[in-house]
Amino acid sequence: MKFDDHKYSGVYKSQIQKVDVILNSLLKNRKPKSLYEPCSYILEGKGKRLRPFLVLVSAKSVGGSFAKYYNAAAAVEILHNFTLVHDDIMDNSDKRRGRLTLHKKYDVNTAILAGDNLIALAYECLLKDSKKNVSQVVSTFTHGIIEVCEGQSLDKDFEVRDKVSLAEYKVMIYKKTAALAEMCCILGGQLAGCTKKEINALSSYGKNLGMAFQIQDDLLDIIGDEQEFGKKIGSDLIEGKKTYLFLRALQKAKSTDMGILQKMVKQKGIERSEIENYKNLYIRLGILKDAKKEIEHYTKLAIKSVTSLRNKEGQQLMIWLANALINRNK
Amino acid sequence: MKFDDHKYSGVYKSQIQKVDVILNSLLKNRKPKSLYEPCSYILEGKGKRLRPFLVLVSAKSVGGSFAKYYNAAAAVEILHNFTLVHDDIMDNSDKRRGRLTLHKKYDVNTAILAGDNLIALAYECLLKDSKKNVSQVVSTFTHGIIEVCEGQSLDKDFEVRDKVSLAEYKVMIYKKTAALAEMCCILGGQLAGCTKKEINALSSYGKNLGMAFQIQDDLLDIIGDEQEFGKKIGSDLIEGKKTYLFLRALQKAKSTDMGILQKMVKQKGIERSEIENYKNLYIRLGILKDAKKEIEHYTKLAIKSVTSLRNKEGQQLMIWLANALINRNK
Repeated sequence: MKFDDHKYSGVYKSQIQKVDVILNSLLKNRKPKSLYEPCSYILEGKGKRLRPFLVLVSAKSVGGSFAKYYNAAAAVEILHNFTLVHDDIMDNSDKRRGRLTLHKKYDVNTAILAGDNLIALAYECLLKDSKKNVSQVVSTFTHGIIEVCEGQSLDKDFEVRDKVSLAEYKVMIYKKTAALAEMCCILGGQLAGCTKKEINALSSYGKNLGMAFQIQDDLLDIIGDEQEFGKKIGSDLIEGKKTYLFLRALQKAKSTDMGILQKMVKQKGIERSEIENYKNLYIRLGILKDAKKEIEHYTKLAIKSVTSLRNKEGQQLMIWLANALINRNK
Repeated sequence: MKFDDHKYSGVYKSQIQKVDVILNSLLKNRKPKSLYEPCSYILEGKGKRLRPFLVLVSAKSVGGSFAKYYNAAAAVEILHNFTLVHDDIMDNSDKRRGRLTLHKKYDVNTAILAGDNLIALAYECLLKDSKKNVSQVVSTFTHGIIEVCEGQSLDKDFEVRDKVSLAEYKVMIYKKTAALAEMCCILGGQLAGCTKKEINALSSYGKNLGMAFQIQDDLLDIIGDEQEFGKKIGSDLIEGKKTYLFLRALQKAKSTDMGILQKMVKQKGIERSEIENYKNLYIRLGILKDAKKEIEHYTKLAIKSVTSLRNKEGQQLMIWLANALINRNK
């Protein structure tokens, strides 16, 4: 099953279009141009819109209707884009979704300010769809932002630390990536007014899906299709990133292999010409298989979580999505 | 009447201490240290805590009690500190409140992330004191952030523009400074559950107080006490800032004087040795008097706004505050 060869992919596409309508109209006629043009620029980038879809299917799965939550769905996408803008400054990245990053297209100050404004715009959007339990909904959203900031801070810490355990890495990717997916799912449930038991199920789905997503992202850096994935293969190795693959390899490597791995840490990255060597090392140590197993493990946990949800179509969409993400190549 | 020679200054000090207790305990035991140490660093700086006091007196003036709104008061101070952290990066400022700015103490990436996290922490604090009309309260808060971002963007635009009118300048300082003071007052009123008429009175008070505050800030750059004001006299001129004083001078200057003023624009600032010349020019053109009149004008409007508010102590505190701010030297 692939991301776009199933009847549910039609639902996904049509719902995401509705969210895009909001994203495209939200900033029209706002001034000053120096602030809103950059904000529009990042929102126009073609992302997967995975997070808004999580809000929508989660609301659906507990009996809500898609149409009531497009603003909230747009809100999480805006929030996600804020993280991209500021992360790209911190990582000094040039490209994002095949286009110049915001701070390269404009400048760092503009990107800082656009990111700040996106946070507030996200809250503005969220409030439009929050009728009851507003305090709960806003609290969930806010908690998600704090987790993302903590995760990004850990990620920066790990860049300069020599030793990072796989357990620490998982905490980091939980906070940096999975917590936001979890937030989207809880948000959808809360907006639709679900039970506490359902919140737990949605939380577990989002969290495990997010973990699978990030490890898949790490894996795609080695086995992905450059064209589809939108970035050069082996970038994580070149940048010296301590990914799941790398940390798992450190656990399993002995003597010579260990030396090769530690070289990457010491030199804070490798040359492009060395990527093939590292890929072969990963294969030799069984790392790619381990990563696939780990992704399957989290995906199974995600799928298992949704069995108790009351709306079958929502439930099926969530199962489809989890499987589709495993098979993605971008 | 000065800031600290009146019975109301005792109320101010004691209430601000309660807010500081919250600010000091909020981040205890949070991890990672790499994120929360910088957040604590900026909150520990000794600010006037003017904005939290606005929340408290506004709530008081419509019949609320101080004690119920310390978290909301802390929230606006946290939000204000976020703006300081990110503005200081954009302005490349070295010092703030007599200490190193956050990005100089740590680094730019840390400061970006700490600022982001402060926004979320501010919402977290705000929610603690929001029981009813949460949607309204969060919307007011969010709108305040958007205004500040728009104001900061205009401020950056004006830096590189040759011509800025006094009217445009007022729009900018409204958004960058006065809108946040206005937001604090509206917030206090909404939290205490006041009437629409009272919201209008509080809005007018905050807005006009904010305008007076910013023009006073511009004035203090020329006539302030360096020790008290916490920054070098004439900094705005050295940095080539188009302040109220400068733009008013442009309106009134003729021939030679006009040439001197335009030199500052062309050269994007002046030398320290030239400050005295510009000060004398301002005096010759009657600019300092004009600024004082303008400050008095906004202060009178602020004071006039509060006459209809139901609680006399709150009202008196607001009048005291407006007068005290006129007489401040920092």
